[in-house]
Amino acid sequence: MGRWEPNASGRLREAALELYIERGYELTTVAEIAARAGLTARTFFRHFADKREVLFAGSTSLQDQLVTTLEGAPRSASPMEAVAAALDTAAELLGENREFSRRRQLVIAANAELRERELIKMATLSGALADGLRQRGVADPIARLAAEAGIAVFRVAFERWVGEPEDRGLAQVMREALDELKALTGAQVPARRR
Amino acid sequence: MGRWEPNASGRLREAALELYIERGYELTTVAEIAARAGLTARTFFRHFADKREVLFAGSTSLQDQLVTTLEGAPRSASPMEAVAAALDTAAELLGENREFSRRRQLVIAANAELRERELIKMATLSGALADGLRQRGVADPIARLAAEAGIAVFRVAFERWVGEPEDRGLAQVMREALDELKALTGAQVPARRR
Repeated sequence: MGRWEPNASGRLREAALELYIERGYELTTVAEIAARAGLTARTFFRHFADKREVLFAGSTSLQDQLVTTLEGAPRSASPMEAVAAALDTAAELLGENREFSRRRQLVIAANAELRERELIKMATLSGALADGLRQRGVADPIARLAAEAGIAVFRVAFERWVGEPEDRGLAQVMREALDELKALTGAQVPARRR
Repeated sequence: MGRWEPNASGRLREAALELYIERGYELTTVAEIAARAGLTARTFFRHFADKREVLFAGSTSLQDQLVTTLEGAPRSASPMEAVAAALDTAAELLGENREFSRRRQLVIAANAELRERELIKMATLSGALADGLRQRGVADPIARLAAEAGIAVFRVAFERWVGEPEDRGLAQVMREALDELKALTGAQVPARRR
């Protein structure tokens, strides 16, 4: 066991992000990340499985907290209201450090393997939300549709939030995207079938 | 150049699917697929880059035809109406052979690499639909949201269609899923609150 290092995980994430932006994800090694953080590779591997997972740490915890929110929504909440509550939790957890999110997004957009990993993360999150809705007694395909719609809002809002010149707050951007989705899908209501 | 083989591509797809189901995707080789189809490996490689792509042949053509439909929708069509027209085209193209789709889905569900490839295909399709909407003058984030919502409907409906005991027609299942999405996202309209 190595000695205790204060905030080793945060220092490693910051060092990794710096290096991925400076010289590219592919060309950065774990040894370099550890050195930049003033830590050893052994310490790196106590916190992360590999250099890719530095960018995806917290996915499981995010997922758990979204599902907890979903499950805790009032029994009277509609499926989309429960999903909206989960999105508020996501905004709370992810909305604190826009600069970090913005840089992480740049790194992911530049690498096919990371984009795939991000797609898998989102699909897993959607599956977890659908399971949470089924736990609430929502039947398929409604559970899957509501989860997929929630994830669509999440992705679009997140990308918009990191790309905007000023930080309006992730929660606000998410609620706006959800309202836009409602307007979109509701646009045809009475004359729907032509 | 080998001699011309009638419907080589269809025979190879059918042979591949049979083998993937009998012995698993991982354990099947290109030589075995070609042998089962009564063809040579050389013929296989004239049609497909590798054994994975046998399952994804037609993705590009599907995408092109969806985008063409989207672009050809009346100028008065709302973003979701244009997306719904593209989904009708998808149903026409994919809805013919439910048994093939059902078996393909089984193979994909059983293998992580194939599930990832399928996620990438869907993300690419969503990107193409969003681009098509932008060509119609739809601004972001509406273009992205409408495309993502369309892909969510597509995925949920497709899985439902292949899983149901009887074949109701993919177009009908897609329209039903779209209506369900509309009802879901409209759930905060006062009258629908429980």
